[in-house]
Amino acid sequence: MANKESDFLRTLYQNWSERMAADPEMSIEGLRALFDEWGKATLEAEGVCYKSDTVGGVDAIWALPVDADKAKVLIFTHGGGFAVGSADSHRKLAAHFAKALGANCLVLNYRLAPEHPYPAQIDDVVAVYKALIAQGISAENISTIGDSAGGNLAISSVLKMRELGLALPGSVIAMSPWIDMETTGVSLQSNAATDALVSAELLAGMAGMFLGESASASDPLTNPLYADFKDYPALYITAGSVEALLDDAVRIHEKAEESSVNTVLSIVEGMQHVFPFMAGRASEADAEIEKIAAWYKAL
Amino acid sequence: MANKESDFLRTLYQNWSERMAADPEMSIEGLRALFDEWGKATLEAEGVCYKSDTVGGVDAIWALPVDADKAKVLIFTHGGGFAVGSADSHRKLAAHFAKALGANCLVLNYRLAPEHPYPAQIDDVVAVYKALIAQGISAENISTIGDSAGGNLAISSVLKMRELGLALPGSVIAMSPWIDMETTGVSLQSNAATDALVSAELLAGMAGMFLGESASASDPLTNPLYADFKDYPALYITAGSVEALLDDAVRIHEKAEESSVNTVLSIVEGMQHVFPFMAGRASEADAEIEKIAAWYKAL
Repeated sequence: MANKESDFLRTLYQNWSERMAADPEMSIEGLRALFDEWGKATLEAEGVCYKSDTVGGVDAIWALPVDADKAKVLIFTHGGGFAVGSADSHRKLAAHFAKALGANCLVLNYRLAPEHPYPAQIDDVVAVYKALIAQGISAENISTIGDSAGGNLAISSVLKMRELGLALPGSVIAMSPWIDMETTGVSLQSNAATDALVSAELLAGMAGMFLGESASASDPLTNPLYADFKDYPALYITAGSVEALLDDAVRIHEKAEESSVNTVLSIVEGMQHVFPFMAGRASEADAEIEKIAAWYKAL
Repeated sequence: MANKESDFLRTLYQNWSERMAADPEMSIEGLRALFDEWGKATLEAEGVCYKSDTVGGVDAIWALPVDADKAKVLIFTHGGGFAVGSADSHRKLAAHFAKALGANCLVLNYRLAPEHPYPAQIDDVVAVYKALIAQGISAENISTIGDSAGGNLAISSVLKMRELGLALPGSVIAMSPWIDMETTGVSLQSNAATDALVSAELLAGMAGMFLGESASASDPLTNPLYADFKDYPALYITAGSVEALLDDAVRIHEKAEESSVNTVLSIVEGMQHVFPFMAGRASEADAEIEKIAAWYKAL
């Protein structure tokens, strides 16, 4: 059973759900302000400094642990259905990963839907990746990492890099990734009562903004369940057992295993969507980040 | 004339004003989410780390410049009409001051109105101050600093400390302080057309939440225009020339001068409410913070 601290996120999500239900016509600006409260779940990661930057034309924040290996970089793509969330909302979460993994982390303000539908988001990640390579960071020392829609981007941007013939990142980390733009996962129903935020309706609205007029919900780059994972880097997937997107984590792990990818699926009991957000606050979040760090360092 | 960067805050305020006008019944949660966008004006201060903490029972964030004099502490009280704003929204602004002044800075999540009317806010600042003294920080090495309603708190909390017979902080810094709970300043009218955010109506609503059922708008601790500044520490006041609260800055400076306080009033041409928010982005903000740092270091 969740204690007060590890229940923080469920309480926050419940509050958001109530506010969105009370204002079904909430503007995209209002939704973005609301989702920026995500950062409230996370305590500050000590020993990490920050720097605002523009890399590959993309606005971003560096999270720079004072003792990081400067040769190693994480490209962090925040969640929020491709339409909300920001580098600000995810700065502290990214910083906890940077510190635990011993790498600098670049948290992207990639372009958001609906103003910028697919493929703007993937294009931004690839532009950042190319810029980092041009700055002298080696491909194998770069990892992509993201949560929810940003977990999709962490995965799909590497599929795009492979399509472009680029040397690939060393690893990919996806927290509670939202993979399936067709929203067919069984957990959308089976965990509907326990997930305090994500619903098929919410996802359908965000998929519409992301895909826009012309993109397909079954394109391997919008929905990597349709992708082939041949020659894909090591892939870590984490999710909470009670979340509606659990089945996306399970299915993308199976998909990667079909292509013999070095992949781990870690499902943590009782946890909500992107539970690592509670880093510094809840032991479940800190333990999972430590587990990911051990996996990363052993690659 | 403001360039694109130094006009950032006016544009942000204009956007807020439009959203508040479009939703006059916006909930306090909605207002808090909106005002937390304040932090978007500020770029990250490089070479500053952070730590979540509870000091004197008050939730807070430390901004810790890597080369700070650890004996010196700034207590930062954020703005937002005593009802909105947060340590998160003001973290980067506080960090720029911490770095420029060479001191650690504690950014308070003091209790907010209307849930907690006066004197909860002052009580929290005094509790933090006592806790820092108990931790071995000397009074003269502590400064209070804040913006808007938090500028009032930076000033009024030191009046309260004097009333309690405590050794007083070394200095007080107030940016665009909102002092007058009776909202009688002439600039509320004369700058009404140029201030993109603050209006007499907005202030009246916030004063109502702050004062609650029982506090007076002419109490020296809610409205320091009624205070006596005898034996008050050095006081720096900054404001923008086009803001509606300009007259509060002018009048509190005059009031302090009547008691021969070592006080500076710095009015920066063309600037909006709390223009130092644009630190790292606009030269006017960076120059004013450097000016304050020079004043602080020369005390």
